[in-house]
Amino acid sequence: MADERIWTAGLCIIGDEILSGRTQDRNIAQIAAWLNLQGIRLSEVRVVPDVEGRIAEAVNALRTANDYLFTTGGIGPTHDDITVDAIARALGIGVVVHPKARAMLEAYYADRGGINEARLRMARVPDGAELIENNLSGAPGIRVGNIFILAGVPHIATLMLEALSGKIEGGRPLLSRTIGCWVPESEVALLLGETERAHEGCQIGSYPFFRNGRVGANFVVRSIDEKALEDCIADLATRLEEEGREVVGAEI
Amino acid sequence: MADERIWTAGLCIIGDEILSGRTQDRNIAQIAAWLNLQGIRLSEVRVVPDVEGRIAEAVNALRTANDYLFTTGGIGPTHDDITVDAIARALGIGVVVHPKARAMLEAYYADRGGINEARLRMARVPDGAELIENNLSGAPGIRVGNIFILAGVPHIATLMLEALSGKIEGGRPLLSRTIGCWVPESEVALLLGETERAHEGCQIGSYPFFRNGRVGANFVVRSIDEKALEDCIADLATRLEEEGREVVGAEI
Repeated sequence: MADERIWTAGLCIIGDEILSGRTQDRNIAQIAAWLNLQGIRLSEVRVVPDVEGRIAEAVNALRTANDYLFTTGGIGPTHDDITVDAIARALGIGVVVHPKARAMLEAYYADRGGINEARLRMARVPDGAELIENNLSGAPGIRVGNIFILAGVPHIATLMLEALSGKIEGGRPLLSRTIGCWVPESEVALLLGETERAHEGCQIGSYPFFRNGRVGANFVVRSIDEKALEDCIADLATRLEEEGREVVGAEI
Repeated sequence: MADERIWTAGLCIIGDEILSGRTQDRNIAQIAAWLNLQGIRLSEVRVVPDVEGRIAEAVNALRTANDYLFTTGGIGPTHDDITVDAIARALGIGVVVHPKARAMLEAYYADRGGINEARLRMARVPDGAELIENNLSGAPGIRVGNIFILAGVPHIATLMLEALSGKIEGGRPLLSRTIGCWVPESEVALLLGETERAHEGCQIGSYPFFRNGRVGANFVVRSIDEKALEDCIADLATRLEEEGREVVGAEI
C-alpha cells in the first residue's frame, strides 16, 4: 500500500480573465474530478497571466515535478493566445503548422468564410506534437510529451478530456466517502485526528458549514484502497455516535 | 505612464478539497476583483495541498515575487488546518498564542460549550502577527509581514477582505471596459492586435462565445489610465464598425 506509485498531474490555467476576476474558473474542478477517475492526482495548480515568460516558467516547474501537465486557455486565434509559443519556448523546441490540424481547420471554416492567417494560428503546434481532437470548435487540443494543452472554454475542454479518457496511464482512482454531522468541527477535532492516524492510507478532511441556523460539518475520507476507506468511514461514524453526535449517512 | 509602479499580489489557495474537485473555488474571483479595487494586480495563483512543506514552498515563492501574498484555507481547528504552522516555517519564525485572538475565541465560545484545545488552535499565529477581525466566526484572519491569511469559506473571506479595504497601499485601480460584437474572433484577430499596439498602456482580451446559435466575442480593454482606456475602446468600436461588424455597446 504505502509503496504504491501515485501518479500526479499539475495544471496551469493561462489567462488574464481569471486573474482579473472577470471570469469564474470552472476548469480546476472539472479537470480535478476527471483526473481522479483516471487514477491521477492533481498535485498543484498555477494561474498565470498572458505573458510568455511567465507561462514558460510555470510550465517547466509543473511538467518536471509531475507525471503530467495540463494547461487551459490561450489556444485561440487572437494576439493574446500565446500558449503554444510559450510551451515551445519552455521545451526549447520550434513551432510548426500541423498538417492534420490545418486540414481540420480548412474543413471547419469551408462554409464559415474560409481559412485566414488568424485561423491558421490554431494549427500551430510545438514540433513533434499530436492533436487532441474535438468536433465542436474545429481547433484541436495538443499533446506534446507529458503536456496536454486544452481549450480555456470549459465545455470545449470537457470534450478534449473525453477524447483522452482511459488513454493516459494512471494508478488506482482516488476514492472518497462523506458523512455529515450536526456538530461544530472544533468539538470533534481531536477525534478526527485520532481516527485518521488509526487508518493508514486514509486522509480525513473536515468542511464546516452553517445551514438553517445550525452548525455542522462534512467529513470526507479519501483513499485509493476501498477496504481501508470503508473501515475508516465506519470507524469514524462509530466514534462520533459514541460521543452522542448526530451523524447523517451522507453529505449534508 | 509606463514608469508607474504596478502593485502586485500573489494568492495561495490551500486545500485538498479544491485539488480533489470536491469544492468549486470561489476565492480566486472574489479576491481578484477586490484587489483591482485596491489598485493591486493579482499576478499569480497557486493551489496547493494540505502538506506543510508544499505550502511553505509556495508561500516563499509568492511572497518574495510580489508586494503582497494572500492565502485562503487551513485556519480552522482540525488536524488538516496547518496553514499557520506552514507559514511560520516558511518565514523561519515561531508560533505563539495571540492574547487578543484567545480572548475573542473565549468570548465567542462562552455560550457555545467553552474553549477547548482544538478551538485554541485558532488563536495560534506566527510570532509578531496582527489579527484581521471578522464578527461571524470568532476566528480571526492574520497579517504577518506582507502576508494576509484568510479563511477558506468564501463568505468569511469576504468579511476579512472588507476589514482590509482601503488599508493596504496600492496604485491606481485597473479599469476595464467591454464591448460585445457578433463576429467570430478569428475574423478580427488582426484588427485586435493592431488596435492594442496603437494604444500604449492598454491590453485587449478577446473572449469568444456561442449563444442562440450565433458566434460572438466580448472584447475587454484594461488599463489604469481612464483616458487611454476610453480612447482605445472608442477606436476599437470604430474599426469594427468600419469593417461592417455589428458592435454592441456593452458585454453581450
